[in-house]
Amino acid sequence: MTQETIDKILKFRDDRDWKQFHNPKDLAISISLEAAELLEVFQWSGSDIICLDKKDKIAEELADVVNYCVLMADACGLDLDEIVQKKIAVNNEKYPVNKAKGKSDKYSEL
Amino acid sequence: MTQETIDKILKFRDDRDWKQFHNPKDLAISISLEAAELLEVFQWSGSDIICLDKKDKIAEELADVVNYCVLMADACGLDLDEIVQKKIAVNNEKYPVNKAKGKSDKYSEL
Amino acid sequence: MTQETIDKILKFRDDRDWKQFHNPKDLAISISLEAAELLEVFQWSGSDIICLDKKDKIAEELADVVNYCVLMADACGLDLDEIVQKKIAVNNEKYPVNKAKGKSDKYSEL
Amino acid sequence: MTQETIDKILKFRDDRDWKQFHNPKDLAISISLEAAELLEVFQWSGSDIICLDKKDKIAEELADVVNYCVLMADACGLDLDEIVQKKIAVNNEKYPVNKAKGKSDKYSEL
Repeated sequence: MTQETIDKILKFRDDRDWKQFHNPKDLAISISLEAAELLEVFQWSGSDIICLDKKDKIAEELADVVNYCVLMADACGLDLDEIVQKKIAVNNEKYPVNKAKGKSDKYSEL
Repeated sequence: MTQETIDKILKFRDDRDWKQFHNPKDLAISISLEAAELLEVFQWSGSDIICLDKKDKIAEELADVVNYCVLMADACGLDLDEIVQKKIAVNNEKYPVNKAKGKSDKYSEL
Repeated sequence: MTQETIDKILKFRDDRDWKQFHNPKDLAISISLEAAELLEVFQWSGSDIICLDKKDKIAEELADVVNYCVLMADACGLDLDEIVQKKIAVNNEKYPVNKAKGKSDKYSEL
Repeated sequence: MTQETIDKILKFRDDRDWKQFHNPKDLAISISLEAAELLEVFQWSGSDIICLDKKDKIAEELADVVNYCVLMADACGLDLDEIVQKKIAVNNEKYPVNKAKGKSDKYSEL
């Protein structure tokens, strides 16, 4: 994601004077709610786990999740690149390639 | 988020041969699960809606959500910048500045 | 669910003096978190949408969701039978049998 | 919850011939979605963690969660009283009164 996109997200918030509502707890709730709206796309899809015909809806709801992630990072003074790269390093320890390759198990069960 | 970070996320997946598990339905579930882990940070915080002392935990869980958003975008052939900017345009219509300024109401109640 | 089960749930809480933490917002968060743990059972199950072999885990996580629903009802002074039967009446209007029969569509799309 | 309420929930489903959609994975998704709708009541409430004025909305959304829990139990052949009482016994081990009294910590941190 470019800085331009991030700036647009923050400008949208500031134009509406919404920073006052953006405490971390309510932002965490918001991320969960948007994740649920994304999940709703698949609610009764049964074994159709691809749902190709719903790509537009997926795009829209995924955008909402990412939007709130950017707002959460801003509210907490976090840099997305930094925290994601740091977490990848942690995950590299938890899921070593030789143990995790081709398996969907949780690290605690590898 | 830089392309470098996105590339690291995808490389982590490919090193472990995990693309086979990454169907959209299970990725949507995964985003919800990680959003719940982020929310768990605030589970019994009561009216402490900032939780400054838990910033490290917030960073780690937020990174997990973003990580799966990148994987979801890749699995569905979506470009995060494109979908987020498109959604901002939609939200600009739903939440006009003159109506939404300083209010936390849902667009349907503005 | 019998009154005996409900009483056991409330006694468990009171024995530990936990009512002080049970504000509606944190209970709503808790229901979401337990729902996520139930969902986790199906995280990478792909098109196996039954997961018969995980019935014990499903039972345990479903119990947690129900447990918090009882605690939420108690915290808000709500009677589960009353609110559920009231909601069924509402849903009978939203989903008339002749329109909804055999369809998984949302009421707004029937 | 009385057997009468449970019977009404199942009758509502059967009148509409919806059992065909009620596989465990989609029901777990549904419980999560309804839990999110309940959580949405508190989305921007900030440090107002009681939200007394929204009791009707809470009742309605809580009813939806309970409704799907009953449907999930039925789909998996589980008895709610049995699984809840069994889980209380497990929790009694995880959270002994003398350690957990008056504390909101997770069992792993007691």
